Amino acid sequence: MKKIKPVIREDKNDLGFGARLSQEQHNRMMNRDGTFNVDREGMSVVKSMSMYHWLITISWSKFLSLMAAFYVVVNFSFAFGYYLCGSDALNGAESTTMTNQFWNCFFFSVETFGTIGYGSLSPRNAPANWLMTFEAFFALVSAAMATGLLFARFARPNAKILYSNHAIIAPFKNGKALMVRVINQRSSQLINIEAQIIFSWMHEKEGRRIRQYHTLPLDRQKVTFFPLHWTIVHEIDEKSPLHNKNKEFLKESETEMFVMITATDETYSQTVHSRSSYRYDEIVWGAKFKDIFEKSTTGKAIGVRMNRIHDYERVEVD
Amino acid sequence: MKKIKPVIREDKNDLGFGARLSQEQHNRMMNRDGTFNVDREGMSVVKSMSMYHWLITISWSKFLSLMAAFYVVVNFSFAFGYYLCGSDALNGAESTTMTNQFWNCFFFSVETFGTIGYGSLSPRNAPANWLMTFEAFFALVSAAMATGLLFARFARPNAKILYSNHAIIAPFKNGKALMVRVINQRSSQLINIEAQIIFSWMHEKEGRRIRQYHTLPLDRQKVTFFPLHWTIVHEIDEKSPLHNKNKEFLKESETEMFVMITATDETYSQTVHSRSSYRYDEIVWGAKFKDIFEKSTTGKAIGVRMNRIHDYERVEVD
Amino acid sequence: MKKIKPVIREDKNDLGFGARLSQEQHNRMMNRDGTFNVDREGMSVVKSMSMYHWLITISWSKFLSLMAAFYVVVNFSFAFGYYLCGSDALNGAESTTMTNQFWNCFFFSVETFGTIGYGSLSPRNAPANWLMTFEAFFALVSAAMATGLLFARFARPNAKILYSNHAIIAPFKNGKALMVRVINQRSSQLINIEAQIIFSWMHEKEGRRIRQYHTLPLDRQKVTFFPLHWTIVHEIDEKSPLHNKNKEFLKESETEMFVMITATDETYSQTVHSRSSYRYDEIVWGAKFKDIFEKSTTGKAIGVRMNRIHDYERVEVD
Amino acid sequence: MKKIKPVIREDKNDLGFGARLSQEQHNRMMNRDGTFNVDREGMSVVKSMSMYHWLITISWSKFLSLMAAFYVVVNFSFAFGYYLCGSDALNGAESTTMTNQFWNCFFFSVETFGTIGYGSLSPRNAPANWLMTFEAFFALVSAAMATGLLFARFARPNAKILYSNHAIIAPFKNGKALMVRVINQRSSQLINIEAQIIFSWMHEKEGRRIRQYHTLPLDRQKVTFFPLHWTIVHEIDEKSPLHNKNKEFLKESETEMFVMITATDETYSQTVHSRSSYRYDEIVWGAKFKDIFEKSTTGKAIGVRMNRIHDYERVEVD
Repeated sequence: MKKIKPVIREDKNDLGFGARLSQEQHNRMMNRDGTFNVDREGMSVVKSMSMYHWLITISWSKFLSLMAAFYVVVNFSFAFGYYLCGSDALNGAESTTMTNQFWNCFFFSVETFGTIGYGSLSPRNAPANWLMTFEAFFALVSAAMATGLLFARFARPNAKILYSNHAIIAPFKNGKALMVRVINQRSSQLINIEAQIIFSWMHEKEGRRIRQYHTLPLDRQKVTFFPLHWTIVHEIDEKSPLHNKNKEFLKESETEMFVMITATDETYSQTVHSRSSYRYDEIVWGAKFKDIFEKSTTGKAIGVRMNRIHDYERVEVD
Repeated sequence: MKKIKPVIREDKNDLGFGARLSQEQHNRMMNRDGTFNVDREGMSVVKSMSMYHWLITISWSKFLSLMAAFYVVVNFSFAFGYYLCGSDALNGAESTTMTNQFWNCFFFSVETFGTIGYGSLSPRNAPANWLMTFEAFFALVSAAMATGLLFARFARPNAKILYSNHAIIAPFKNGKALMVRVINQRSSQLINIEAQIIFSWMHEKEGRRIRQYHTLPLDRQKVTFFPLHWTIVHEIDEKSPLHNKNKEFLKESETEMFVMITATDETYSQTVHSRSSYRYDEIVWGAKFKDIFEKSTTGKAIGVRMNRIHDYERVEVD
Repeated sequence: MKKIKPVIREDKNDLGFGARLSQEQHNRMMNRDGTFNVDREGMSVVKSMSMYHWLITISWSKFLSLMAAFYVVVNFSFAFGYYLCGSDALNGAESTTMTNQFWNCFFFSVETFGTIGYGSLSPRNAPANWLMTFEAFFALVSAAMATGLLFARFARPNAKILYSNHAIIAPFKNGKALMVRVINQRSSQLINIEAQIIFSWMHEKEGRRIRQYHTLPLDRQKVTFFPLHWTIVHEIDEKSPLHNKNKEFLKESETEMFVMITATDETYSQTVHSRSSYRYDEIVWGAKFKDIFEKSTTGKAIGVRMNRIHDYERVEVD
Repeated sequence: MKKIKPVIREDKNDLGFGARLSQEQHNRMMNRDGTFNVDREGMSVVKSMSMYHWLITISWSKFLSLMAAFYVVVNFSFAFGYYLCGSDALNGAESTTMTNQFWNCFFFSVETFGTIGYGSLSPRNAPANWLMTFEAFFALVSAAMATGLLFARFARPNAKILYSNHAIIAPFKNGKALMVRVINQRSSQLINIEAQIIFSWMHEKEGRRIRQYHTLPLDRQKVTFFPLHWTIVHEIDEKSPLHNKNKEFLKESETEMFVMITATDETYSQTVHSRSSYRYDEIVWGAKFKDIFEKSTTGKAIGVRMNRIHDYERVEVD
């Protein structure tokens, strides 16, 4: 039987990693969470770091801690400022000790920054009044910024697709297929889900090992609804670049499978993008996914046990 | 006459419900409001529940009640906290009874959380001052969150398409057609409206009953404007999978018609998605929709009586 | 010469106005500002009115007046409430006259709703404290709503395309053409602008006058940039449905030209939609647009006088 | 060898600059930052200026300065207002000097606008109370506006693509190619990047010099990921309009190369647009870009020195 060569435009379809990177990179290019294994240096921090981007992508616990830290630092700073305004800075703060005076200044700052202003403490001399004027402005801007950031965090497409820990080579029809299982981790609906798997491997060519890329045809590339899981299937038939390959080939060729998913999040009608990658050591040759369904406890609807998405059992494939 | 078989790729076009679900599910798959008849279990609540998604999709009355409840609970909690700070916690609260002292603490908390701070009550001792410092921060974050959530609720595409209660099999040209009537429930403009009807039924195949899916060709699949109602029409001609079928077939085959609509909401230029489904018992065989127009009371413009969208009358179809 | 018939699928291409509407409507269907000449009745106000949609589309002056009115009404209502709490409702309000007492209540409400709380007035008895608790909550929600609405108004695609007051039939190449001139009224950039002109007219068919629709082919349907004006041109050649027609035909056939424009607003990368319509009495047969350019006062860049967009001069066309 | 003529629809493909503009404009049409070299006059300031658009596109330092200036002006204005209310306008302000009285009014305004309200100063007479009522409303609206504007600034697609300072004509395969190098200046991910280069030059036609436009075919028009830089390549082969041209041609024909890039910003799933242009004096004939990679300091990932994007070295091209 004539071997069918899986040839596509080799130089063009490199996903944007560039030829040189593709040749030299022996580590994985994409991490499991979809980020790239790349360092970027040499730009000034201001331009490249993009504080805003960072503030809206860090975890909620980190974000709230940062806000709390900011709140404390700001109030200590202003407290110190009021303290420097002298002992007659504040009405209602006729303390005899310096420590007490500082804490009076601190709580006065809190009452000002929080725009509460009980009045048991109030600015008396001119420097304190001017500092209060500035803190009031600072408080307005800070509140507006915090609100903006909080909403920006809320409004981000929050779709999260969970990928099975392993890709598997499973029996399929009369042959075998590469399979990946995904599930919608959020309760929001995703529709019009589209998947793409790109097979990337090192190839000997004119004495040099170069990395090649090949988009694998899928059994179903698109589904309309996604209420349950979806098993993405690439049938390894004669036309597949994985035809007649085996487990050892994956390792030798430093195989990396890129999985890319695009979907529409119904909540905001936003297009969301997700991706992951499986290195050769995350591909199980000879396995099938375990069943994820079960009779719902309520009896009427179909139930799905989401945490079983990673489960597979070993089977023979030819 | 040779019977034209409505065959499409049977295994592929399953809308994402999956083969097994399609075989076992004897209840409807999609509810009238477009949600899926599926239970999802086994994910930790934190990950799958998506509080945010829930908060922006519940009704306004529920949301405002929740905010009020949050407001009350927060103030009672802080009131209790201030109460624990001792009888010298607050200036201006020289009450003799414990109950009065608690209510002083409660109203003090209200004045602090609302950032009002009249000053008739103000924190006196150190614990009360620190608690006030924390409440001020909590108030800032809460206000920012509330604003973010409120805007997130506002900014959601608020297009709402009303579907006629029944799909009908009505006379059309020289034969008959499946018809569904829809109307824009909001006063915002929808443009470029596109509809799709997918006919799904149980089919005997190799001794097993499996569910099949077939996209029905429509008389008009797209309209540019949608100022009035739109009757979506699938003509039941020779090529239709409903050709030579009758009312009994719908029931026996557990027919379910999925209607999907995509449109652009002009207010924010957002694409909005809507869907509904009609089970066999919501399809009237032999009916036609009643007229929805009437001379406008103002005389110049065309009038449409929106609440007549569900009205139909029984007629004979062959 | 054989007359080329401008026939397209007559029943299908009705833009969504529906057959019956198209037959009976003798007034214009679309107004100059792109709204539809249609009345919608019969839905409950709550569902169809969509207060939110109304609040973000009214003019700024109207919106700010409404906010001011809301502010005044709210404060008078709460003032009345505090007044009903009795003469010992407030500390610092030992007025002897009832009028003075009411105004004290009013300004106390202002200080509470605005979360200022000077403290010269503060709630004394229990009813006043509870009312204050409610007003503080109401103030928080109102502020959040106002912020949300204000931002929703800001974030709307604010592209505004200005259409020339008249469409003209102008000399073009060796014949003539229908022309409409448009310009970007905002300083934000629009890119990838696409236009469509639909010619609609009443047509005698089997004894009945029915309205027909025909998309006119354009000389250029799309431009990449839109820094200046754009003259949309439909050449009236042999294939045009306006071939061999004259001014009288436009009137007799109750011609209405729908112009639809889609573009991308660069500020937010939003797709924006705009449309207008020209009735027969807004189409000038025999005219050409006046020049809109002039040497810029700064000398280096090209200048365009935007208010000349409507200007045309009469010329002969065959 | 027969010369292949680079002919496309000459009159149509003018990018929207218009025929007349294209003929008369001898300066560059597009500036390096992608803005157009065009003056727009004659619209009323209100309509065309679009204050909102301006407020969200100015730099952060400018924006914050404006907010500070607004804050100061507002408080001085209200201070003057309270001052005019007479010497009994405020409680707690029994100053003997007019200057002191003014500053009391100023700080009272600050406490009101910032919704702090210590209460050491509070409105006493009726005019002061009414002015306070208005300032409280003004403060609410201002805070809402500021929050809205701040968020609008945050939410803008903040992708920023850096273009190499020069386009180069570099050796490529057996011939040469036009190359431009771009890099993502932000740390947010861009995906599905698409580029277009349009070659524009003055051409002698029937005795007149008219500007022509030609979209250059690219070696790769699209990349999926953009973790590093991307060199956009147009091979100058027989079919290229630059075939057999030289450096002098670029100058004589007043060449301008428009580069347009479209991409998806993952943070918000927004489509972002970027563009730049290279005039003949920014195109280096005979050069190649220097290497931008280097071993990462961490050793594992690939490193890229972003500030080397502009570096090239002179080489011979035939």
